[in-house]
Amino acid sequence: MTERLNRQVLLTSRPAGIPQAEHFDIVAQPVVAPRDGEILVRNIFLSVDPAMRGWVSPVANYSTPVPIGGVMRAYAAGQIEHSADARFGAGDFVTGQFGWQEFATVKADAVIRKVEDTTLPLSTALGVLGMTGLTAYFGLLDAGQPQSGETVIVSTAAGAVGSCVGQIAKLIGCRTVGIAGGPVKRQLCLDEYGYDAAVDYKTPDFAATLDTAIPDGADVYFDNTSGAISDAVLPKMRARARIVICGTASISSWDPWPSGPRVERYLLVKRARMQGILVSDYTARYPEAIRELSAWVRSGALRYREDILDGIEQAPGAIAGLYRGENIGKRLIRLT
Amino acid sequence: MTERLNRQVLLTSRPAGIPQAEHFDIVAQPVVAPRDGEILVRNIFLSVDPAMRGWVSPVANYSTPVPIGGVMRAYAAGQIEHSADARFGAGDFVTGQFGWQEFATVKADAVIRKVEDTTLPLSTALGVLGMTGLTAYFGLLDAGQPQSGETVIVSTAAGAVGSCVGQIAKLIGCRTVGIAGGPVKRQLCLDEYGYDAAVDYKTPDFAATLDTAIPDGADVYFDNTSGAISDAVLPKMRARARIVICGTASISSWDPWPSGPRVERYLLVKRARMQGILVSDYTARYPEAIRELSAWVRSGALRYREDILDGIEQAPGAIAGLYRGENIGKRLIRLT
Repeated sequence: MTERLNRQVLLTSRPAGIPQAEHFDIVAQPVVAPRDGEILVRNIFLSVDPAMRGWVSPVANYSTPVPIGGVMRAYAAGQIEHSADARFGAGDFVTGQFGWQEFATVKADAVIRKVEDTTLPLSTALGVLGMTGLTAYFGLLDAGQPQSGETVIVSTAAGAVGSCVGQIAKLIGCRTVGIAGGPVKRQLCLDEYGYDAAVDYKTPDFAATLDTAIPDGADVYFDNTSGAISDAVLPKMRARARIVICGTASISSWDPWPSGPRVERYLLVKRARMQGILVSDYTARYPEAIRELSAWVRSGALRYREDILDGIEQAPGAIAGLYRGENIGKRLIRLT
Repeated sequence: MTERLNRQVLLTSRPAGIPQAEHFDIVAQPVVAPRDGEILVRNIFLSVDPAMRGWVSPVANYSTPVPIGGVMRAYAAGQIEHSADARFGAGDFVTGQFGWQEFATVKADAVIRKVEDTTLPLSTALGVLGMTGLTAYFGLLDAGQPQSGETVIVSTAAGAVGSCVGQIAKLIGCRTVGIAGGPVKRQLCLDEYGYDAAVDYKTPDFAATLDTAIPDGADVYFDNTSGAISDAVLPKMRARARIVICGTASISSWDPWPSGPRVERYLLVKRARMQGILVSDYTARYPEAIRELSAWVRSGALRYREDILDGIEQAPGAIAGLYRGENIGKRLIRLT
């Protein structure tokens, strides 16, 4: 086993804004055998997430930035090859922050979830049944608190998180409005994800179509973008609106810190609430959410798309592509 | 009675920013006798509140703006002279939105509170036991949800609302930090309102003294100012912080809409919440709050200052003075 090589994607320089292929390098190191309490995971899918931009940024974030020369932090799904921890055995499928590499030798505590249901594709454990779906689920339901009959508007509405948000909101009886970039994604909102209305923010008449889509405003805004889209949506929020801040995809850099219209008066006059969310705050409730999300996926009530790139050599450029909006659905790297 | 004259402060033009004396005029009209379901109140105290700036603004607000030529909307406390409603009798002390005038003939439903406890000064029914104290009470406790041991930071900390917030936070076991303008107000924070630390935002070393006052950040920010003060405080909020938006005193005009550093990333990274509050959303819970606030005032645990101007002719310029920060404590107009 120690003869085998583990290809890893290392962060080689710190991007000022969105990480590009040139900020990474691929190296090969011997696979490390697990010691007591550790497991050796062969990664099958690597996740590509908008949040990874923050993980390499020197600007304040949830955690310390990935060090220069370190393996890129990433969620992954794989199979245990060797376990030195009683809770896991060889052959188990697991997800965790195993990094952008082919093999991960990690403490068993690094496992987020043992994937025991093998009737759904393993890739879903990183998407609709992984951090993506969980982010949508807790962000919408816990921070957004939508009520049946309310209007929920979603930015990056056809994206991995956004499409889940729109569908869950619809399932609980809300009117749903999606904001997406370009006619293809807009149509996907309507045809695939069941939004009651969808608006293309890239058209010159964005403001007017937004007015038409939410003539009486919106009660919940699930925001993945910040920037000009939010600036157009915020003035239209209704009294006691809930604005869920899940991501800031439209801001290419926070250094220097960008300015925008002050939000205080919108929040004050509407007694609205704006709240940032992080899925890992809900760890204790993952099993409940996974059960519910799985049931919806199985019944066809919750649809998802995947954008699968083949081979670890696709990883370095994959985040930048995400920010260019080139993917449809949850972006993953498949290792073979 | 119909022979008597009622002096009224009318809004005569719409201010672009903060209302000045020149935007008002004082006229005298005959006192109007109450019809069925109405009461005639002789106002004793008129309230001067920062929120009045919003009430005359054409920019989106809670309610329709005061019409040009209309009596200036205002809270007042007075005594009923004549009641044509079974719930009230002559001699009752009441508060309500009776307007900036000597006599108000209004529907009995306009009464916010019958002041039955006459052992505390009637003026307190507009201040520490009125909208001011209630705003502090519900804003801090309901939206801010401070826990014992947490740090609460307050802007306009020596002001009518701010001083209540600081003291209530202290009463429930928080560390309190006040931000006020000038050495006199800063000292008042420390000596009168029991803040653990106070910072003068008008000094050139504001940022450094703020760092010293909240070296580990703050859990709750009760914000009455927006603007540069908030821009300095927001980056220092701790994980799961609550930011209560109560006022925007430092913004002189919302037309054109001012810009500032985008807040989304602060909220996201800290999973913080920013929420606007309006006291009248809590009407059903006023009695509970008044009981608790009254007990604190009686015991000396909750101190307040008043800034009383004599005569209705002081009213037109009184809002502008508030925004210049010339008052210490709750500003009232006393009618004789």
